[in-house]
Amino acid sequence: MAKRTTPMNLSFIMIFMIVLCASNMFVCRGEWEPSWSSKAAEKAEAVAAIPCSGHGRAYLDGLILKGHDEPVCECHQCYSGSDCSKFSSDCAANAGSGDPYFLEPFWMRHAASSAILVSGWHRMGYTYSDGSYISELLVKYIKNVHSIVGNAITEGKYIIFGSGSTQLLNAAVYALSPNSSDSPAKVVATAPYYPVYRTQTEFFNSRDYSYEGDTSLWKNKTDSNSIFIEFVTSPNNPDGKLTRGILEGPNVKSIYDRAYYWPHFTAIPSPADDDLMVFTISKLTGHAGSRLGWAIIKDKAVYQKMLTYLDMNTMGVSREAQLRALKLLDVVVEGDGKQLFQFAYSTMRDRWTRLKQIISKSKRFSLQKLSPQYCTFFKRQRDPSPAYAWVKCERQQDKNCYEILEAAGINGREGSLYSADNRYVRLSLIRSQDDFDILINKLKNLVAKE
Amino acid sequence: MAKRTTPMNLSFIMIFMIVLCASNMFVCRGEWEPSWSSKAAEKAEAVAAIPCSGHGRAYLDGLILKGHDEPVCECHQCYSGSDCSKFSSDCAANAGSGDPYFLEPFWMRHAASSAILVSGWHRMGYTYSDGSYISELLVKYIKNVHSIVGNAITEGKYIIFGSGSTQLLNAAVYALSPNSSDSPAKVVATAPYYPVYRTQTEFFNSRDYSYEGDTSLWKNKTDSNSIFIEFVTSPNNPDGKLTRGILEGPNVKSIYDRAYYWPHFTAIPSPADDDLMVFTISKLTGHAGSRLGWAIIKDKAVYQKMLTYLDMNTMGVSREAQLRALKLLDVVVEGDGKQLFQFAYSTMRDRWTRLKQIISKSKRFSLQKLSPQYCTFFKRQRDPSPAYAWVKCERQQDKNCYEILEAAGINGREGSLYSADNRYVRLSLIRSQDDFDILINKLKNLVAKE
Repeated sequence: MAKRTTPMNLSFIMIFMIVLCASNMFVCRGEWEPSWSSKAAEKAEAVAAIPCSGHGRAYLDGLILKGHDEPVCECHQCYSGSDCSKFSSDCAANAGSGDPYFLEPFWMRHAASSAILVSGWHRMGYTYSDGSYISELLVKYIKNVHSIVGNAITEGKYIIFGSGSTQLLNAAVYALSPNSSDSPAKVVATAPYYPVYRTQTEFFNSRDYSYEGDTSLWKNKTDSNSIFIEFVTSPNNPDGKLTRGILEGPNVKSIYDRAYYWPHFTAIPSPADDDLMVFTISKLTGHAGSRLGWAIIKDKAVYQKMLTYLDMNTMGVSREAQLRALKLLDVVVEGDGKQLFQFAYSTMRDRWTRLKQIISKSKRFSLQKLSPQYCTFFKRQRDPSPAYAWVKCERQQDKNCYEILEAAGINGREGSLYSADNRYVRLSLIRSQDDFDILINKLKNLVAKE
Repeated sequence: MAKRTTPMNLSFIMIFMIVLCASNMFVCRGEWEPSWSSKAAEKAEAVAAIPCSGHGRAYLDGLILKGHDEPVCECHQCYSGSDCSKFSSDCAANAGSGDPYFLEPFWMRHAASSAILVSGWHRMGYTYSDGSYISELLVKYIKNVHSIVGNAITEGKYIIFGSGSTQLLNAAVYALSPNSSDSPAKVVATAPYYPVYRTQTEFFNSRDYSYEGDTSLWKNKTDSNSIFIEFVTSPNNPDGKLTRGILEGPNVKSIYDRAYYWPHFTAIPSPADDDLMVFTISKLTGHAGSRLGWAIIKDKAVYQKMLTYLDMNTMGVSREAQLRALKLLDVVVEGDGKQLFQFAYSTMRDRWTRLKQIISKSKRFSLQKLSPQYCTFFKRQRDPSPAYAWVKCERQQDKNCYEILEAAGINGREGSLYSADNRYVRLSLIRSQDDFDILINKLKNLVAKE
């Protein structure tokens, strides 16, 4: 009798097991099961699963409406509605700020490898185990990224972190100043330049340094008693040109803002080896909100003065930001270490190409001239892919280019902000695809009207 | 026949299901299964599971030894070895810095509710949806904590974040200064005081303000043309006294450092309602490493000047730090909103009691006098529980109390750091239980020798 029942039992049990295995892998291959981390993981996945029609984003710390327990969608410019599905065509294109949302799709594709789970007791103290405010491991990762990209020489140099490059710029000005009130350092920059160099230097109103206008005013006039601190942005913000310092002489110190010296935005002709270079994760991985930058410093005394500045100002940089940067850079160097750069470069190059096609049809507007160049990272000649368009209004009567574009529904930034003529406007090309597409459409219409 | 085989089949299937249910809940009650978050969650739990003998901690961003793929244990002072199991009794007690590790056990007990999982694309932009650098939701949570504790009035006031209270102290000095170089503001504090007020004000060497020594030098002398900015720390660091401002008059502005105005460290006699108050998460939840503080400001113009300072200095505070603070405060207000405070108070009160018992046996050393007081939060009279012991060497010849304690293997901080006599030493009571236990043993031996 047993014999006759066995096949029936077996088949029954087999089916039972197949169903179980299908419904859940655990039984079949002993997988890890979350314990205390599952609540945080579930919440993060639930928020990430809110679609917002692909025209917005819900965040863990997004505003929660009364009576709801889920964050609301934060819609891209020109999109609205609870699910960001309503598009209003008469809304202006946001080409103003340099929020690097163009890299967001890369991180969504690398969701599993780029996520971090932070326990409630992670790094509660002021310092790391070596007594510093600086993660030794993150320094190691940063050096590794630079050596893979070949955009900066870090060997035998000191690395310090700041709350974004913003904090490091003033820390560098302080550190390069003589700190003797009788002869404050003269801080200069070459137009068109990133406004923060001037506004920040003036804002802190220190006895140690003062902003002294455009570099050109001081050419061949640096043989004075005062120290000159020249800001050099390379590639330059706003126009993307690879620039060099202008002033020369024993009294001249330079701060090289290298925020955009990545394959995303420029060819890398050779590794930068300046005495003081400033970088930021904002323009490398696109995480502007983390407020994490770093300086690479040749001189030990300058490094130590910058360390003191960071201690006095903020006692270093948030440990959460350092932990996150560590994970992001871990993904950047994955495999051959080229994935992020290939994605970033092709995105920016395609945007520049589309923009150039439109402006090429125009007599009224022109773009900065950038030519293909050999890149030691990609090991080939490559097309330009700047972070910003530096648009010029060519017509005699178009004295304020910002207003011309604004009237056509395009919000850029006035040339005068960069100490340049108002015939120029900076248009940000590194924002979300939605922002860029709206910008392109507005420009098409504007040029078509000529 | 079927009848005869059924019980056997059923029992077989029943046992099979029980085993499955025991090994994994999924089948029995459809639980959520992690997808992209599981790698991060697994890593965090693996690191948290490294025991370090209870005398150290392994962190996600801890240094990884060559050939290993797990972070190493970072051992508490006086403990060593790969698992922190080796104790060396001849090692000095660390009672120096105010790392608030005493709260770590609370967060380990609330592991599930206090963890956050940060996706790779979380808040990449510079601003929140309202265009600010400040999480509106976090502001809401902070106001809620203050209203539950009753330690500060926030209604009709402005809240701004800084990278720790450190950054806010100088932002406040800037905002209260007249910003006219002909009459810089005079910054003062009352000894013994937290050294950063002086060192930071002097360090930035601004034309807008200067440090002008002890408050007592200016009593009844404020009827001048200059603005006076008085730092008031209440409860005071180092001595835990609830203090008030000393200077009076139309030219006098005060910055109230309320870092320690929590039930952990003091009775709350009434909600603070000062014009400018500074708080920090470091002394509320114990997360010094997050670098997140906030100021509560009555005057809109002062608030706006502080906002400008934050923009110019760091473009706000790390979004990761703000997200984490949000989660931590979420746990703080859980249930009746008393759990954290009860834990923190009983821990600090017990430490103070143990310390007092030892010093009471001594003629050589004395502690600051603190008396029980009614607390509106606990709704009862409560014993003192200060963050620091302000020890005095009573013997005529013990002019340098720091050296006396150092010789006995106790590292505190010299009175002179707080602009006080070197007969005083500050001992930190808010560090880990290991640090406190070592401190107590060293003190016992020292007092026993009298």
